[in-house]
Parts: sequence; structure tokens; C-alpha cells
Amino acid sequence: MSSSDAPRRPATVIGLGRMGSAIASALLAAGHPTTVWNRSADKAAPLVARGAVAARSAAEAVTAGPLIIVTLADYDAVRAVLGTSAADLAGRSVANLTTGTPEDARSMAAWAAEHGAKYVDGAMMALPETVATADAFFLYSGSREVVENERPLLDVLATTHYLGEDAGVAEVYDLGLLGAGYATLAGFLHALALVDTAGVRPEEFLPHASRWLQGMIAYLPEPAREIESGDYSAPASPVGMNRAGLAALVRVSLAGGIDPGVHVPLWNLLAQREADGHGEDSFSSVFELLKRRP
Amino acid sequence: MSSSDAPRRPATVIGLGRMGSAIASALLAAGHPTTVWNRSADKAAPLVARGAVAARSAAEAVTAGPLIIVTLADYDAVRAVLGTSAADLAGRSVANLTTGTPEDARSMAAWAAEHGAKYVDGAMMALPETVATADAFFLYSGSREVVENERPLLDVLATTHYLGEDAGVAEVYDLGLLGAGYATLAGFLHALALVDTAGVRPEEFLPHASRWLQGMIAYLPEPAREIESGDYSAPASPVGMNRAGLAALVRVSLAGGIDPGVHVPLWNLLAQREADGHGEDSFSSVFELLKRRP
Ligand SMILES: NC(=O)c1ccc[n+]([C@@H]2O[C@H](COP(=O)([O-])OP(=O)(O)OC[C@H]3O[C@@H](n4cnc5c(N)ncnc54)[C@H](OP(=O)(O)O)[C@@H]3O)[C@@H](O)[C@H]2O)c1
Ligand SMILES: NC(=O)c1ccc[n+]([C@@H]2O[C@H](COP(=O)([O-])OP(=O)(O)OC[C@H]3O[C@@H](n4cnc5c(N)ncnc54)[C@H](OP(=O)(O)O)[C@@H]3O)[C@@H](O)[C@H]2O)c1
Repeated sequence: MSSSDAPRRPATVIGLGRMGSAIASALLAAGHPTTVWNRSADKAAPLVARGAVAARSAAEAVTAGPLIIVTLADYDAVRAVLGTSAADLAGRSVANLTTGTPEDARSMAAWAAEHGAKYVDGAMMALPETVATADAFFLYSGSREVVENERPLLDVLATTHYLGEDAGVAEVYDLGLLGAGYATLAGFLHALALVDTAGVRPEEFLPHASRWLQGMIAYLPEPAREIESGDYSAPASPVGMNRAGLAALVRVSLAGGIDPGVHVPLWNLLAQREADGHGEDSFSSVFELLKRRP
Repeated sequence: MSSSDAPRRPATVIGLGRMGSAIASALLAAGHPTTVWNRSADKAAPLVARGAVAARSAAEAVTAGPLIIVTLADYDAVRAVLGTSAADLAGRSVANLTTGTPEDARSMAAWAAEHGAKYVDGAMMALPETVATADAFFLYSGSREVVENERPLLDVLATTHYLGEDAGVAEVYDLGLLGAGYATLAGFLHALALVDTAGVRPEEFLPHASRWLQGMIAYLPEPAREIESGDYSAPASPVGMNRAGLAALVRVSLAGGIDPGVHVPLWNLLAQREADGHGEDSFSSVFELLKRRP
């Protein structure tokens, strides 16, 4: 019997919102025996039609098997649902994919440990429709054992990345990535408003923005290296030059009747670096103003 | 005789800083007879060694041929240099690749027209080392005739995009692209500071950030479409949900001792949309607060 013929490991999915339903579907499609539970029971029906077993209570769901995947709206919901079956968690694995803060994740990990459960926290870098496609990646931190034992099952959902024992790290990555994405979108929306002042339509600007931002992504290893080394002394792009570039951007925005706001914080940071005597350092040295002070 | 054996058109390059030198080098390598001039004459020497003709004055450079490519520090320099040979410009083509504001470009176009010159303004989306590689693209606006006549020569330098008769448009695109890039970098630096609070090194975070931002670029057509149509009513990602996401990002930044500043303007914009009753609209509807009021 080849390994692909081996029986698939079972899983329980608690929470059948947009993400939980996509996850349960993907597990069923891959042949994993899947038990599901949702507060509003009607959401289980389409999954039962495809072979899922509907648990009648959260406690029944928890006791159905060795792995419980939790995808609820927030950690209050997770505490409410798992709290009812705390006594049944001992010896089981919990993969909590609910979005929250690093502190949420760490306190949930501590709570799970108190009840004898192995706990891994996850961040789903995905949309419901990209679950189980090459576009999805899930970040995990906490129990290494859960990720190692359940890797083939987790790999059904998304590319699996394990980030270490600190259960909070996956949520830290999640927030960092969300922030980087938000900043990119904010800059794009501002740029659309700016080119709009010259009658340029979003669809016209789009291909140029995509190309330029591809170049930005290709450039990111350079600031990452500079920050890692703390050596900002051989800049391709110095603070002073970029401070002037931001000033022009703000000035032209204002002249065009456009809110320059999204660019003001970076402009201020660059101006502060320059005022502190670091005008010839690399742009990326702004990191020194952002990072936590020892 | 095949067209590739046809004699290459001549060009004059005024300004031999980092970009001007790269441009003159590329033209020489492609076999274009190239006349060069720079305020500090020593910068011409390496180009003369490779076949360029050094003009002894800006006026001599201008009269050397039909096309004058200008790459100086700023528009003050352009006005100073071209001002000395205004009378010689009639009938010639000027491609001014100096970075400036849309108004700089428009007033230079008007000045060139007064002196009988055809004028196109350009924005170089490139670095000195990417000139004449697939990574470079140059944006032009102003005289369509110049771009059409000189296209094979311009294509030597970078991918050529012509954006219309308004000479200011290339600089508007330039500022929009720079702004989008700055925002992306600011978000990345903030994310590095955030993950640093959990002991995550830049090099560890980098591949995840690259992958996530690739996904962001792939997503940009959606906000572009929503803004183009003005229909924000079927959001994949609503204002209210994202306002909450930004709030968490700011809260966790502060809890970690990190300056949340770069994310505050977008948070405020989302909060304002929500307060205005648009919490269920798409994220991209923030554009309505940024764009110029009629
Ligand atoms: N959607 C996305 O694109 C996406 C992407 C990445 C991460 N996430 C994160 O994934 C998680 C789930 O997102 P989603 O889009 O699937 O959310 P959703 O569609 O709104 O589903 C929310 C789920 O939470 C349940 N729930 C809420 N409060 C509860 C409570 N007090 N007790 C029991 N169950 C409760 C809901 O049950 P009912 O059906 O009974 O209301 C439902 O199953 C969130 O943390 C979200 O931030 C979402
Ligand atoms: N470098 C880049 O990565 C890059 C990328 C895209 C766009 N740009 C833009 O391209 C333009 C040129 O950039 P660059 O990097 O090539 O600059 P650069 O290396 O600093 O060269 C500046 C040039 O301008 C000349 N110049 C300055 N003031 C002058 C004056 N009053 N009269 C005559 N000549 C004067 C300098 O002559 P001297 O040699 O005599 O000083 C030199 O030739 C700028 O507008 C820049 O923003 C640069």
C-alpha cells in the first residue's frame, strides 16, 4: 500500500463561517474524515451533504478526534466555545486559526497547556476562495509537535510555515503582513487620487503601478540586509534625497487639492533622521526610529 | 539593407550625472552618434573614450543634432542650461528626463513651444544601473511626434510608454508611483519593527512579506475597478472590518513600544468613512475621501 493510500487522519472543524467552511470542504475533498460544529447549526448542512459528520455540541466535536481546528470570529468566541469542553481537551491537539493579537494567542496557549492540550496558533494568509490553492499560506507557532504530526493534513489547506514555539509569533507576522499590505493599498489609493487630478483613470495607471511595485518587492532584500547589519552607511537611496522626494509628493498633492496625509508620517520620520544628522544614511535607517527602544 | 543596418539617428545628451552618463553609454553601445555636454567637463571623458563627441558649450551641444536629451539635477538647472541656447532650439526635439513637478513640466513645455521646439517630458522609472535593461521603463508625455519619431532610440534606454499630450502627466505618474513605493517601504519598515518585538529578524520575515505583497499587487485590479465604476457596494473587504484591523495594528504596535504612526492616517480615513455611514462599503471607497473635490 503506497502512502497515498494510507487512511487520512481525522479532524474536527469548529466554526463554519467563511473560512471554517472552506477548510472543512478542503479536508473532505482530500479524504479526511471530518467532524464539524457551528453555533448556528444550519451551516453544517452543506458539509454533511459532502460527507462530514455534524457534532451535536462543541463538547461532542472536541471528543470526536485527536485534532481540533478552530476558526471563529475572535478569541472571545474561542474562549466561550472551548471553555465548555475544557475537561475534554487533555491529550488532544488544537490548531486555532482565529485572528487575534499575539497576547490573545499566548494566553490561549497557556490556557490550553493548563488543560493538557497541545496548542498551535495559526494565521491564515488567505481568502475563503484561496484556501487549498497555491495562493494560500498559513503561518503557525506554538507546539512544534502538532505541526509535525499533522503536516500532511495542514498542507491540504495551504502552504504550511512553522515559525517557532512562541504561540504569539504567528499573530505578530499576521499583523506585520497586514500592515505592509495596508500601507501598499493606502499608497495606491493616494496615487490614484493624484493621477486623477490629471485626468488619468485607475485602469490606465494600474499596469504601471503593478510594475513599479514589483520592482519595490525585488528591492526589499536591500533594506532587510541593512537593518539586519545595522550598517546604513552605503546607501543606494539616502535619507535626505528621499525626504526631498516626500516633500515634493506632499506639495504636489496639496497643490492638486489632494489629502497628502498618508505620506506625512514617513516624511516626518525622514526629516527627523536628517535633523539628527543622518541625512546621508540609507532610507532604511528610518527603522531606527520605529523599533522598540531597549 | 535590413532596417537594423540603417544608420542610427544621432542624439545629444545634456547632463552627465549618474543617469545622463548611463543614457549616453547606452546610446553609444547601440551605435547612435552621440554628442555630450556637462557643466563639469571631466564627466565627458569616459564617454568620449567610447566614441562620443564632446560639445564645448551647451549651445554647441544643442546645435549638434535634431534630438536633445536633458538629464539634469532639477528644472532650475534645465532652465539655466537651455536658456543660454533658446534661439537655437527652433525645429529641434527636446526630451527632458529631469525629475520635477507637473507644473515644472508644463511650464517648460510652454517655454519650448515659444522657441519653436518640440518638447516631451519624461520620467525615468529606473536606476543608473538598470538603464537599457528590462527593469527600466520611461514614461513620456507632451509631443507625440517626438516619441513617434525617436521611438527606436528611446527604446534603447528603457521600455517606452507614451501617456498623452499634457506634458505634466509623466511627472504626475512619477509622483504617484514614487508615493506608492514609499508607502510600501514605510509599511515594510514598520512591519520589521513589529516582528522585531517578538525577536523575528528581517531576513526571516522577508520571504513572507514578499509573498504577501505579491498577493497585494495581484489584488490591485479590484480596487481600481471599484474606483473606476464608483460602485463600492459588493466589497470583498469592507471598511468596518478593515478599520478594526487597523485598530488592532495600532494597538499592538503601541503595546509593543512601536510607533504606529505610518498606519494612523489610513485608520482615520476608514473611521471617517464608517462615521459617514459607509462601513459596509468596500475598503477602496476611501478613495472618495482622497480625491479632489469638484
Ligand atoms: N474571511 C477572510 O477572508 C479571512 C481571512 C483570513 C483570516 N480570517 C479570520 O478568520 C476568522 C474567521 O473568519 P470568517 O471570515 O470565517 O468569519 P465569519 O464568516 O464571520 O464566521 C465567524 C464564525 O464565528 C462564529 N462565532 C462568532 N461568535 C461566536 C460565539 N460567541 N460563539 C460561537 N461561535 C461564534 C460564527 O458562528 P455563527 O455562524 O453561529 O455566527 C461563525 O462560525 C476570523 O478571525 C477572521 O479574522 C478571515
Ligand atoms: N539617480 C537615480 O537613480 C535617478 C532615477 C530616476 C530619476 N532620477 C532623476 O534624474 C535626474 C538626474 O539624476 P542623477 O542621479 O543623474 O543626478 P546627478 O548624478 O546628481 O547629476 C546631476 C547633473 O545635473 C547637473 N547640474 C546640476 N545643477 C546644474 C546647473 N545649475 N547647471 C548645469 N548642470 C547642472 C550636474 O552637473 P555637474 O556634473 O557639473 O554637477 C550633473 O550633470 C534628477 O532629476 C533625478 O531626480 C535619478
